[in-house]
Amino acid sequence: MASKLDKHVLKNGMVILGEPMEAVQSVAFGFMLPAGASRLPDGCCGAANIIEDWIFRGAADMNNRALGDALDSLGLNRFSSVGSGHLSIGAALEAENLAAALELYAKITRQPRLDDELFELAKQLALDHLAGLDDDPRHKVMLKLKEQFYPQPLGRSTVGEAAQLKSLTAEKTRQLVKQHFNLSRTIFAVAGRYDFDALCSQMERLFDTGPQEESKEIELSEKGSKYTHIHNDGAQVHIALMTPTVKPSDEQYYNARMAVSVLSGGMSARLFTEVREKRGLCYAIGASYHGLKEAAGILCYAGTVPQTAQQTLDVIIQQFDRLKDGISEQEIARAKIGLESALIMSSESSASRAARIASDYYVLGRVRSLDEIKERIEQTGAESVQRFLQQNPFEDYTVVTVGPEKVALK
Amino acid sequence: MASKLDKHVLKNGMVILGEPMEAVQSVAFGFMLPAGASRLPDGCCGAANIIEDWIFRGAADMNNRALGDALDSLGLNRFSSVGSGHLSIGAALEAENLAAALELYAKITRQPRLDDELFELAKQLALDHLAGLDDDPRHKVMLKLKEQFYPQPLGRSTVGEAAQLKSLTAEKTRQLVKQHFNLSRTIFAVAGRYDFDALCSQMERLFDTGPQEESKEIELSEKGSKYTHIHNDGAQVHIALMTPTVKPSDEQYYNARMAVSVLSGGMSARLFTEVREKRGLCYAIGASYHGLKEAAGILCYAGTVPQTAQQTLDVIIQQFDRLKDGISEQEIARAKIGLESALIMSSESSASRAARIASDYYVLGRVRSLDEIKERIEQTGAESVQRFLQQNPFEDYTVVTVGPEKVALK
Repeated sequence: MASKLDKHVLKNGMVILGEPMEAVQSVAFGFMLPAGASRLPDGCCGAANIIEDWIFRGAADMNNRALGDALDSLGLNRFSSVGSGHLSIGAALEAENLAAALELYAKITRQPRLDDELFELAKQLALDHLAGLDDDPRHKVMLKLKEQFYPQPLGRSTVGEAAQLKSLTAEKTRQLVKQHFNLSRTIFAVAGRYDFDALCSQMERLFDTGPQEESKEIELSEKGSKYTHIHNDGAQVHIALMTPTVKPSDEQYYNARMAVSVLSGGMSARLFTEVREKRGLCYAIGASYHGLKEAAGILCYAGTVPQTAQQTLDVIIQQFDRLKDGISEQEIARAKIGLESALIMSSESSASRAARIASDYYVLGRVRSLDEIKERIEQTGAESVQRFLQQNPFEDYTVVTVGPEKVALK
Repeated sequence: MASKLDKHVLKNGMVILGEPMEAVQSVAFGFMLPAGASRLPDGCCGAANIIEDWIFRGAADMNNRALGDALDSLGLNRFSSVGSGHLSIGAALEAENLAAALELYAKITRQPRLDDELFELAKQLALDHLAGLDDDPRHKVMLKLKEQFYPQPLGRSTVGEAAQLKSLTAEKTRQLVKQHFNLSRTIFAVAGRYDFDALCSQMERLFDTGPQEESKEIELSEKGSKYTHIHNDGAQVHIALMTPTVKPSDEQYYNARMAVSVLSGGMSARLFTEVREKRGLCYAIGASYHGLKEAAGILCYAGTVPQTAQQTLDVIIQQFDRLKDGISEQEIARAKIGLESALIMSSESSASRAARIASDYYVLGRVRSLDEIKERIEQTGAESVQRFLQQNPFEDYTVVTVGPEKVALK
């Protein structure tokens, strides 16, 4: 479980984090650029999704085709994602190709071509992806939930809004890239097989950009509606709900994680047994912790049919409520094993390690070791979780449904 | 890239395969039970999905609750899947819990309780899962494609048919478990951290079942329709098509894999550039090799809108056709890197290694080493792939669409 952390800050301010992994031949790297959905100005919802595509369509001396060929020649397993705070781009690849890949990613982040004639394609793909949500109501209900739950703009849709996407021009989007690809405020993480000294010298050379000022803080406004219903004819009802809880930086964070694990950590967890098994109310159910730097909640999804939708929601809330009234030592023991086991599994993937250290650094300002996380989980107990729940009761639910009929919020 | 294979055959005939991985703390194991969708009798389509749930609801001396608690106490990251040939069940977990997990899985496979009162719940969940396909047209179109493409019953739906699921009784389903959980014909695979000698002694003790006869071979009948349209009102059209190619055991297998990689291996691959980029015809496109022991094909999925559905299909088939007319050395080089890189990445996950060695053993009768796969990929070239395509042209397409309107098959 031991983990070692490499850290270096480039002259321009970019933070370089590394976690070496023995016995792997691969490496995963990622750039967390401060250009997530909530960081872009109002009226641009979805711009990060256009940018995510557009920046890969040619950079510096390479046109769209040359860049695509070069990336493919390195055998990259690329990933990119738009989150609330960041646009993250990266890849997993054979360790020997890391230096060549970073040369390309430096061009992509510093000198993307952003050609006019490729803008419409990038925009159309973002619009198509958005339209695809109609065939993916489970994803749709979760997006809408986060939008309503978090104070705006934190929960802004990471897929985009059609009208705002349509109104974006190449010129406007180019400006957004210029303003928000702040490499001085970017976190770079690597995990797997790498030579940290060589990596740091290369990164200093590649990102010799000079410091850039921090963009102004976003201002948080009101939360959305307590209940939102999206009409959808079909045989299913998708229910999503979320209740506020402590942030990842809070002293009580591990108690919150344990509470969710008792609710939804395995076959014998409460939601699964009480909602699905005993009552047969729904075909899919699960709860999880969702935390941003600024706010956090526990969210729950259930997939059911119209006849049992109301009862499903009622029983879920009942189960959330009841948790504070008593948790057995066996439940705690299983929840600990579940959380620790998930930690070990994810620590064996270079991509998930790189993502975790970058996210820790952003959210907490430091990277936790695996041992620290394990120890903090171990320190919780039935008593600490219950006390936490009594002091931080689940309440003030935000609910979203997608289906043929509404439910009543009691 | 070196890989070592452990192999032992239990007295009852069960094959035990193992691939040790240095420097991991976890282990993944899986049982491939010969109870896949195509192996069950006609009229039972979906039974494997009920069984997949039902067998975990109590076994031997443990009732539903006790078994669920015991599984959760081991921190299992469970997985199970219904395939054409097999029902696979397994988990990834901390290595120290492997022996305890196998004790439970022996009970589950040898003495599942299969209580009457839990049958309806398992059946309802299978029906709900099937109904959920209505909200997942991409999955639906692929299931229908395999059903139409493969000679029956090979492509039988792995999710089930509503009428057949509904008609199943506890008694009938119990018989299916008895007949098809043939532990003498089961392949067991493990990858990660384990002690093979200790594992084999434990497995001999747990599966001291005596040999069971092989069930009779399935008889293959006709393939389905060339074109199937499933009406769905909505903004999207989901297109799936499949053309026959050589099986995994064929000498030409690696040439077929390379051909698919040239079509769909990365950003610069042909389908992506020609269909999506140059023409902007669809928002999602990809092709892959799909092989069973008995037959194989190359399948392609595209997600588009009604206005461009016909042209999307036409251009895809044109691109498939044109492949035999010329492939550049650069395309081959990128395809090799892509395939080899994917191989390395997947070799770093214990679960995917365990799945691969079990599947190799079933399909090929032996397990390929990573070095062998890499070497065989290296041996291909533009010339060998083109010759392969000329001798095994893409033709005889099976097409399925889900959307508001049909397309024409030319």
